[in-house]
This record gives sequence, structure tokens and C-alpha cells, in this order.
Amino acid sequence: MSATRSRTKPTTVSLAAAEAVIAAAKEKAEEIGQPMNIAVVDAGARLVAFARMDGAIMASIDISQRKAFTAMMLKLPTHALAEVTQPGQPLYGLEHTNGGLVTFAGGVPLIGRGGEPVGAIGVSAGSVEQDQEVAEAGAAAFG
Amino acid sequence: MSATRSRTKPTTVSLAAAEAVIAAAKEKAEEIGQPMNIAVVDAGARLVAFARMDGAIMASIDISQRKAFTAMMLKLPTHALAEVTQPGQPLYGLEHTNGGLVTFAGGVPLIGRGGEPVGAIGVSAGSVEQDQEVAEAGAAAFG
Amino acid sequence: MSATRSRTKPTTVSLAAAEAVIAAAKEKAEEIGQPMNIAVVDAGARLVAFARMDGAIMASIDISQRKAFTAMMLKLPTHALAEVTQPGQPLYGLEHTNGGLVTFAGGVPLIGRGGEPVGAIGVSAGSVEQDQEVAEAGAAAFG
Amino acid sequence: MSATRSRTKPTTVSLAAAEAVIAAAKEKAEEIGQPMNIAVVDAGARLVAFARMDGAIMASIDISQRKAFTAMMLKLPTHALAEVTQPGQPLYGLEHTNGGLVTFAGGVPLIGRGGEPVGAIGVSAGSVEQDQEVAEAGAAAFG
Repeated sequence: MSATRSRTKPTTVSLAAAEAVIAAAKEKAEEIGQPMNIAVVDAGARLVAFARMDGAIMASIDISQRKAFTAMMLKLPTHALAEVTQPGQPLYGLEHTNGGLVTFAGGVPLIGRGGEPVGAIGVSAGSVEQDQEVAEAGAAAFG
Repeated sequence: MSATRSRTKPTTVSLAAAEAVIAAAKEKAEEIGQPMNIAVVDAGARLVAFARMDGAIMASIDISQRKAFTAMMLKLPTHALAEVTQPGQPLYGLEHTNGGLVTFAGGVPLIGRGGEPVGAIGVSAGSVEQDQEVAEAGAAAFG
Repeated sequence: MSATRSRTKPTTVSLAAAEAVIAAAKEKAEEIGQPMNIAVVDAGARLVAFARMDGAIMASIDISQRKAFTAMMLKLPTHALAEVTQPGQPLYGLEHTNGGLVTFAGGVPLIGRGGEPVGAIGVSAGSVEQDQEVAEAGAAAFG
Repeated sequence: MSATRSRTKPTTVSLAAAEAVIAAAKEKAEEIGQPMNIAVVDAGARLVAFARMDGAIMASIDISQRKAFTAMMLKLPTHALAEVTQPGQPLYGLEHTNGGLVTFAGGVPLIGRGGEPVGAIGVSAGSVEQDQEVAEAGAAAFG
């Protein structure tokens, strides 16, 4: 089943694909009652689409985009950076590189046909658990 | 007629309104065969929604957002800045303020119920005439 | 012949391809006796490889990278921007967007299998004519 | 023996020397199976050469260059900064100076004839241990 599905996955993030990702994320955000900022970037970590839901905080315009950027630039979900960037941990200070990375949950790679990240979604405005849940719902709609 | 229509116009840029603006802009962009980057900001000149159509140049991710930002920050269509910012003209150098403004066509205010700008659309990737045409098509769909 | 060659062109800029581009550019730079800074970016306008030849001015570390960035972000050789960004011309002020673009010669797209830019080379340190000549020599070695 | 070797060491980082450093780093990176971003700077902490190996994460374009920059600006391997920049330690916050320094392993000075740093290599994309191992392999090839 998963092999079958992956054969149909895209190799790039088209606008239509990004809109489908955002639509799925919005649906989850509405379900949990937390308006969100949602950003989708392509394989070059360049913005493809963005939506700020009514009532979502403005700080997350930037944060959601940085989460998507971070997830693609590192080919990792941003929550994977939370521990390793703590004081005393190996990548302490990582967030100051690349003009500012985000090292908490809410950025998730979009996996393409070959099993590699070909884009990313970043979600912000709720708790990090909510951001992550909504980002995963968006990512699941890719392909 | 215009009084009737303006009574139905929004007073703020909701995500649904921004998506309608982008949809109308995309339709015009497809009609003229020029993929575009399209950004919509609210009354605070903060991004509400963004779409990069397939094939549109990446430089216009930034330019389209700056056009929308510029149009709302100055409550003027960006083409109104083209002449006054030329060498020897009154606002020469204006583009270096506010972290970078855009002074050529493609940014258009979204007019709210009271006849005042309550947001803006910025379009970029084609000729300035094409950008302006698509921005106007988007702005016309507001409200 | 050219059809045959284009079928063999790459679809992405590997490090090996970027090194071949830089080697060809260096050879031309040595031939004309002008040491250069040479940068190659991929389809996302992200740096793949860079070389500063002995004696080349340091200002061009940045300029060469911006030229390659500009050429990919706009899918145009940078010399195509020189006229349209002059005072009174349609894109006056364009160079202030995207964190700084370069609007004079020396940035040239790398054309991939499909005939579309899949990367770019930027060359700087000589006259713009020399920069352009060396950039073209590099671009010709792609694929 | 070491005196003999140091007499043959360069006093500046030529492009040829930087390319030799990168070649040695690449060889080590391939040996350990971790594609890397590799940057070399000169005595002015200015970029001489850079290579992003196929598959290496894009975030490390910036990080590798900052590591090389940091190592030369402080004349120290970057791992020497990891402890002293921790909360409560003497140089807490150092990473916010100079437009952003990197304070974890992977930046290593290149030692010249007089035993003083005359350049640096920065490596990023793997674990900090891998980055350090590859940087040291590169530095050992200098001179």
C-alpha cells in the first residue's frame, strides 16, 4: 500500500499541491479550534503558498515561514532540533545561522516520490503540539 | 450603484476575501498566459495569503510581497510612486525606507466599505503592465 | 547536433557539474589575464560551488554570488536588467528587492535538458564585458 | 620533522591550496559516507572556495561558511567556543556578535609557515563529530 502510494507522490511542490497541503492543514486547525499561519516551501526552501487564518497571531506569519524554511534547509522536522540546540547540547546556537532558524515543533518536510524531502510545511500560532498536529495533517495531504 | 456595492464591501481582509482576490488574479494571469506571484496584506500591511503560480520566477516572491506592503503602507498604488522617486524628483530615494519599498506598478490597495484602503494586493513576475492588470483584476474581486 | 547535446544536459546542478563550469570559467579568465570570483547556484538559487582566483578583488565574493542568485531568481542573464532598471525605466529600483540584486552583466543561467534554467553562474572582478565573457564560457561547459 | 614540514607551508591561502583542502575534506566525507558543505577562508576571513557535495543539506551552506569565518576571526577551532559560550560561562552570547558566529565543532584554522593561522576551513552537514573529522582532514592537507 505505502509503495503504491509513494509511486503517485509528486517530485516537486506545485501550487496545486501546496494548496492541497494548506487546505488539509486548515481543516485540522478548524477541527481543533486554533487558527493558524501555514506556509509551504519548495525544494529550494522558497515560498510557494501561505495562508493566515482569521484570528491567528501576526508573529506567526514569520515563524511559520521560518519553520517551513528550517525543515527544508535541514531536511528534518523542526521538533528534531529542540533538544540538540539546548544549552550544553551539540548544536547550541544553531538557530542563529541562516538568518534565523526555528528549533521547536511545527515544521515538517513534504516527502516526494523518492522518499526524500521535496518541500516543507510550517505551522504556527497555537501550542507547539497543536502546530505539529496541524503540520502533520498538512504534510499527509501531499501527493 | 457604487453606494450599494460599497455597503457590501468588507471592512477587513479575511482569509476568505484574500483567497478570492488571489483566485481572481490567478484567473487573469492564466488568461494572459503569465504565471505570477500574488500576495495579499491586511490593514496592518501584514501578509494574509500568498501564491506562487507554477513557473513564476522566484525573485517575485519578495517583489510581490513588497508591492502589497508598499501599497498599504502608503495607501497608494505602487505605480503612483514611479515618477516621484526618479532622480531629481521629490521622493527620490523613498524605496530605501521601510526595509525596501517597490516603486513600480503591480501593488494596488484593496478598498473597504468606507472607501479607504483596508489591505493591498501585490503581483509580480510579468511586465509591469501585466503585473498591474493582474493586480487590478484581483483588487476588483475584493468585496 | 544541438538537439543531441541537449538530450545529454543535466536536470540539476551537481557539484561535479558546478566544478566543470568553474573550471571552464577559470580557463577563460586565465586566457584573458583577469582573475575572477566565480559562483554557481542550483535551481533554488542556493550556492553549490565558489572559487576566488588569486588576486581577484574581495568585493566580488559578494557580487559574483549575487549575480548567480539574480540570474536564477529572475531566470535571466543579469545584463538583461541593466537597461530596464535605469532611472525612468520600468523596473527602476528592482535591485533593492530580494536583499540586493545585481543588474549588470556577469550572471548567466545554466540551461538544463528541458531548455529551462536549472542553475546559474555569476562572475565578477573584471570589466562587465570580461565578467560576461567568462560567465558565458562557464555556462557553455554545463552539460 | 615538524620544522621541516612547516618550512614548506604556505603563508597565504591561494585558490590552489584551498582546492587541495576541499579535495581532502571531500575524500574524508566520502569515506565516512556523509556529504558535506565545505568552505575555506583566507587570513582576512574572506571566502576563497566553497563546495556543497550532492545531498548535503542547504542549511550548512551558511553554517560551514560561518564556521570558517569564526575560526579565522578568533584564531581558534570553533569547538573551543562550545563551553565558554554556555549560559553562565564567560563568553555567553558571543555568537550574536560579528553578524553571527558558530560555537560548535567543524571550524578549524589553517596553520601557516610561522605557526599562526592564515586561513580556516569550515565543514557542516553531519554530526559535529563528523564535521570536525572532515575539517581536520581538510586542514591537514594545507601546505
